[in-house]
Amino acid sequence: MEPRFPGEPLGLIAGGGRLPRIVAEAARARGFTPIVVRIADAIDDDWDGFAGAYYSWGRVGDAVRFMKASGVSRVVACGTVSKRPDFRSIVPSFRTLVMLPTAFRVVRGGDDRLLRNVATFLKAEGLEPLAVQDVAPRLLAPQGPIAGRQPDAAEERALSLALRVAQTLGSLDVGQAVVASQERVIALEAAEGTRDMLHRVADLKTRGRIGRGERLVLVKAVKPQQDERFDLPSIGVSTIREAESAGIGAIGVTAGKSLIIDYEALVRAADEASVAVVGLAAGDGGQASKARQHGAVAGEGAP
Amino acid sequence: MEPRFPGEPLGLIAGGGRLPRIVAEAARARGFTPIVVRIADAIDDDWDGFAGAYYSWGRVGDAVRFMKASGVSRVVACGTVSKRPDFRSIVPSFRTLVMLPTAFRVVRGGDDRLLRNVATFLKAEGLEPLAVQDVAPRLLAPQGPIAGRQPDAAEERALSLALRVAQTLGSLDVGQAVVASQERVIALEAAEGTRDMLHRVADLKTRGRIGRGERLVLVKAVKPQQDERFDLPSIGVSTIREAESAGIGAIGVTAGKSLIIDYEALVRAADEASVAVVGLAAGDGGQASKARQHGAVAGEGAP
Repeated sequence: MEPRFPGEPLGLIAGGGRLPRIVAEAARARGFTPIVVRIADAIDDDWDGFAGAYYSWGRVGDAVRFMKASGVSRVVACGTVSKRPDFRSIVPSFRTLVMLPTAFRVVRGGDDRLLRNVATFLKAEGLEPLAVQDVAPRLLAPQGPIAGRQPDAAEERALSLALRVAQTLGSLDVGQAVVASQERVIALEAAEGTRDMLHRVADLKTRGRIGRGERLVLVKAVKPQQDERFDLPSIGVSTIREAESAGIGAIGVTAGKSLIIDYEALVRAADEASVAVVGLAAGDGGQASKARQHGAVAGEGAP
Repeated sequence: MEPRFPGEPLGLIAGGGRLPRIVAEAARARGFTPIVVRIADAIDDDWDGFAGAYYSWGRVGDAVRFMKASGVSRVVACGTVSKRPDFRSIVPSFRTLVMLPTAFRVVRGGDDRLLRNVATFLKAEGLEPLAVQDVAPRLLAPQGPIAGRQPDAAEERALSLALRVAQTLGSLDVGQAVVASQERVIALEAAEGTRDMLHRVADLKTRGRIGRGERLVLVKAVKPQQDERFDLPSIGVSTIREAESAGIGAIGVTAGKSLIIDYEALVRAADEASVAVVGLAAGDGGQASKARQHGAVAGEGAP
């Protein structure tokens, strides 16, 4: 998606992690002027060189006003929000107070719905929500080999099992990540997030709860919901490192519907760790061919 | 199920936890003579007053011979097995060596399939597997209130959500336990077991990842598989205590298809903790009425 005019101000609601910065740079490279509203985990992040400010939950209303005053009409939201706001413990500003009922709806229904709810919230405020892939399509995972070595036969079977379970979980609007061997499911992600789940697997391994011969894989799959556009799973260097610590040999993501953060660093990390990273066709028959199509589009970005 | 003759020897393959002892006492009260084969976690358990011995994984073959020599023709297996045997690290006895291919099949496919696989293994060895509820039907959970207070409206909604997710997980042969609020799923059990999952929820709460107003529930549901007879979920005093520590206010189990371990102690613990414990009708329409029937049978045991 291109700017409507050179230097069009683009609102960026940035949580924690590396993704927001990568998206901001991609947007700038496209000719947008990013206006960065840092929230939640981004409190201490360095955004030198970009216009913007940090907003506590009590001042989200002011953040919207700030973006509008900066000429923003389209907004991308991304990054981690590891702590849910507790609206009873904050003193809201006047603007926030006015939109408190809407703000409540945003955080209702679990962290994993946060970004999708933000999209609804922005629309209600007269701003157009964009997805990360609208601004940075090169981040989309291609189908097939992405980084590292090839999965072996046991890992291929484990990837199939994990994908099936992950998609069933997703259809219930629960989590996006699954760890499995070819024999069984080891761990399921819910509210704790992928990182905590991988720590758990490492712990189970240490305690002898996972057989020495069991080859483990991690799958992150998109939820088959309509508003998946605003909630794509992502992997990056830290995913590779955490997977390696948990004894996981292969990582699968849904092709064309997952984000690869910092592709070149991920390739290096996967080679070092001897971890296979692959893009999987989501779902069965019709869906798979659809995913293949998306994968082809994404392929231009990540070889 | 009654003894075929007074004092019929009944094999009891006992893992860890309180359940095996309760089953042994119920069997004895019925007129069986329990022959106790301790395995896995039961290594240090006190079985004073019962015939039997501990068998390491390397000597499971000898355990079968021992039961047969004791006149056993029917066998119950129950209790926890928190560590999978690693057959490459053990020196098997001759009898175990002979049945090693079968033994491999027993532990294949995840801890949660262990008891069902044991049933298949016993049949292959000419022994008849019985389920816990055959020997101790009073342990089956009734439908409706079981212990503690009544769930409130928010908890009722959370119980419905958690039951739906738990049954979907079960149909994939993954885990049996789910923690949810009325808004979202917080934690899903896979290989780590219920206790570890509840510790995780307590940790999420401490770290501010669960809203202060969110009312949490735990559901343990039977897997809708044919051999569910050998794999019923169970709750006991420790479940109540762990749930309380995790900030969980209500516990639901599938009526007629879950075991209540030590009912009177559980009632006291639920009252002290102000936790609601209820028996839920599994599944929809037809299944629910089936569960109700089972619940009525179980009702004789747990008021």
